[in-house]
Amino acid sequence: MLRDLKEEVLEANLLLVKEGLVRLTWGNVSGIDRGRGLVAIKPSGVAYEDLTVDSLVVLDLDGQVVEGTLRPSSDTPTHLVLYREFPEIGGVTHTHSVRATMLSQAGVELPCLGTTHADHFFGTVPLVRELTPEEVAEDYETNTGRAIVECFRKRGIAPMAMPACLQRYHAPFTWGKSALDSVRNSVALEVCAEMALGTWQLRPEVAPLPKHLLDKHYLRKHGPGAYYGQGK
Amino acid sequence: MLRDLKEEVLEANLLLVKEGLVRLTWGNVSGIDRGRGLVAIKPSGVAYEDLTVDSLVVLDLDGQVVEGTLRPSSDTPTHLVLYREFPEIGGVTHTHSVRATMLSQAGVELPCLGTTHADHFFGTVPLVRELTPEEVAEDYETNTGRAIVECFRKRGIAPMAMPACLQRYHAPFTWGKSALDSVRNSVALEVCAEMALGTWQLRPEVAPLPKHLLDKHYLRKHGPGAYYGQGK
Amino acid sequence: MLRDLKEEVLEANLLLVKEGLVRLTWGNVSGIDRGRGLVAIKPSGVAYEDLTVDSLVVLDLDGQVVEGTLRPSSDTPTHLVLYREFPEIGGVTHTHSVRATMLSQAGVELPCLGTTHADHFFGTVPLVRELTPEEVAEDYETNTGRAIVECFRKRGIAPMAMPACLQRYHAPFTWGKSALDSVRNSVALEVCAEMALGTWQLRPEVAPLPKHLLDKHYLRKHGPGAYYGQGK
Amino acid sequence: MLRDLKEEVLEANLLLVKEGLVRLTWGNVSGIDRGRGLVAIKPSGVAYEDLTVDSLVVLDLDGQVVEGTLRPSSDTPTHLVLYREFPEIGGVTHTHSVRATMLSQAGVELPCLGTTHADHFFGTVPLVRELTPEEVAEDYETNTGRAIVECFRKRGIAPMAMPACLQRYHAPFTWGKSALDSVRNSVALEVCAEMALGTWQLRPEVAPLPKHLLDKHYLRKHGPGAYYGQGK
Repeated sequence: MLRDLKEEVLEANLLLVKEGLVRLTWGNVSGIDRGRGLVAIKPSGVAYEDLTVDSLVVLDLDGQVVEGTLRPSSDTPTHLVLYREFPEIGGVTHTHSVRATMLSQAGVELPCLGTTHADHFFGTVPLVRELTPEEVAEDYETNTGRAIVECFRKRGIAPMAMPACLQRYHAPFTWGKSALDSVRNSVALEVCAEMALGTWQLRPEVAPLPKHLLDKHYLRKHGPGAYYGQGK
Repeated sequence: MLRDLKEEVLEANLLLVKEGLVRLTWGNVSGIDRGRGLVAIKPSGVAYEDLTVDSLVVLDLDGQVVEGTLRPSSDTPTHLVLYREFPEIGGVTHTHSVRATMLSQAGVELPCLGTTHADHFFGTVPLVRELTPEEVAEDYETNTGRAIVECFRKRGIAPMAMPACLQRYHAPFTWGKSALDSVRNSVALEVCAEMALGTWQLRPEVAPLPKHLLDKHYLRKHGPGAYYGQGK
Repeated sequence: MLRDLKEEVLEANLLLVKEGLVRLTWGNVSGIDRGRGLVAIKPSGVAYEDLTVDSLVVLDLDGQVVEGTLRPSSDTPTHLVLYREFPEIGGVTHTHSVRATMLSQAGVELPCLGTTHADHFFGTVPLVRELTPEEVAEDYETNTGRAIVECFRKRGIAPMAMPACLQRYHAPFTWGKSALDSVRNSVALEVCAEMALGTWQLRPEVAPLPKHLLDKHYLRKHGPGAYYGQGK
Repeated sequence: MLRDLKEEVLEANLLLVKEGLVRLTWGNVSGIDRGRGLVAIKPSGVAYEDLTVDSLVVLDLDGQVVEGTLRPSSDTPTHLVLYREFPEIGGVTHTHSVRATMLSQAGVELPCLGTTHADHFFGTVPLVRELTPEEVAEDYETNTGRAIVECFRKRGIAPMAMPACLQRYHAPFTWGKSALDSVRNSVALEVCAEMALGTWQLRPEVAPLPKHLLDKHYLRKHGPGAYYGQGK
């Protein structure tokens, strides 16, 4: 069932390793079949070299496992909230990639400091607030997803124009049109975080990219008149 | 003799190279067969590409070689103290991994700054005091182990809840349920040290992770109700 | 057509990946056949592992495609300005390599701090001014090239003695005798930027290389009496 | 002629690439046959992937080529001074490895901050003074070697107890018992430089390793009663 989706989700999980975004068994990628309302995700704590299409877990949006014998990623409830609340997204990635995690731990948002960032993220990557002791005690992973959605709603951020966030004290979550696209956004986020760390070393008070440059770079790649890439 | 243990110890030593924790001939991993009271360890100064199961050295807990023709790692007495004093551990790793060693050299402990750390270490990774000239002059490697044990006893730290330490002026030691597990803790320590360096660059006065988040992350992976991974 | 040029341009684009200068589909290299006035360049948004000689795009200096079915890199107009205005160059490379991009984002020029720099760049690598909103709104990529040329003309810099620049808020452009040579200059620029970041960490007020050392190193490799390498 | 020496020198040059100490055609390693007074060295400006035993150049200690059709490394005169003045050394390595070069550019010596350093270098790695304009103008590479020797003589440093130096504004030179040993010292120097950069970030005023620990670590590996490694 869902062979194509599962193959893409497998490839996307392995891309995490190839791009140096994960160590050990950290990190997980999922993808959704919107027609059937089913999500394929990495099983929990399985080594990447042992991952196969058949080891992936398929669940419905309420978290009921419909295929697979392994336990799904412990972060699955976070993915499911994002799929339920952001209907335009097709894939979700969670990593503890080193530089993005530094920002999460320091509680520092990632402003747009250059065109690399503007090519992928339309403005500041938001920092999602720390959970309360009550939110941590019960349904921690679901509440993590809810805090992300709350952040985007309150600030009026469109999820596909800003397919990333930094969870305070934790690490980044990214999403995208598909599982692979969500991993590519994790790569872009990690590189932009690394570039920001060096930019701030050189000039702590640096200004963000001027608005007209942000618009130009984001829209030449993602706007209706986009001319980057090979079109459809 | 001890074929399974030696195969795991070999694999664990090679994992050090694969994970980028060692250069040249630095670093060593051992594992113990608790039933027989025998330890298998890397021979001293041998290149990792030349390591074989048969080149490993097997010793009893008093340091008597019972198998192998090569000299064991010069750090062997430190490993043996840890096995004698921490009966719950099954493997020990010593590296000079770059970021953890920076902390050792600077004399700075590693507080828990985020959930990556909380997933592996239940609180601050302690800094073990510098040895006295007398302790260095005689039985240096044994005294290194004793200083680690003293640190954990004095501060009431349980070795399996904190499977790592930073030896002042030297480098980290980690341990775990098995040889491979001790290497995985070395990987986690190195990444957490790297994340801390960047976190402090961004916000020198950053607060540690709130206690309820530390508890949640550590216990969902290691507590009696752990739900990370595939269980037994 | 232009088989040799296209093979070199392909090799040069793949060298970007091998040298760690690009991630995802970022970056592009072109080369020119000066006799025919034709440029071969990477297609836009194509993954490096899918690049073939036949996927490259060939254009004349006015930007008319004369061979290839894919859309050329969105940065093509910048390359074309450089070829038109710097007749001595044979190849152009654009990357978002991490350390050089940090300098672009911070708005910091790269002075010559050591002989590694002097071996490749005859003085300070200039920072090219930010474009105006009008220059961004219309013909952005062409205006990027024009700003680079303006910078070199105003400051009297010879393009082959300084085959690199840092575009404010954006990233580096480099060039050279050939496509491959322009990539090698991107590698040198990235390493020199990394070295500068560490040098400034150690000594923020460090002085540039004395003039006699700059002359010596640059000219022993590039001057009429050069004695580095194997000659012609 | 000198097949064994040339094979080791080839292996040593390729080890530079494997260990990440060089980019492009930077860096060079040589080895000497003391019985015959002949040195084998990398040819100038040749790509590492094109290096073969037969492409190496053999010279006598006066710089007369006795075998090989290519031009030797432009740094050959520096190597020859070191062989003539330090009769106990068997190999020389020159790289622009990134972190050691940062120290050279900043004009900062590398004190012994931990046991990783003490395992390889018996104290502070010295900074060799900048050359005068006259020394640069004539016989630059020979004068580079002379400045290194002058530094070691004036400060009473034994070359085999300190097989490394940092040339001001330039980069490191290392040496050792053999060509391969000189490369291993380059690796150790680069790692120690990296560790120092992070140690100083954490604690700028950090004290060097206490003398009794320096003695212990250096001598357990290199002293007459050394017990690291497998002996002869």
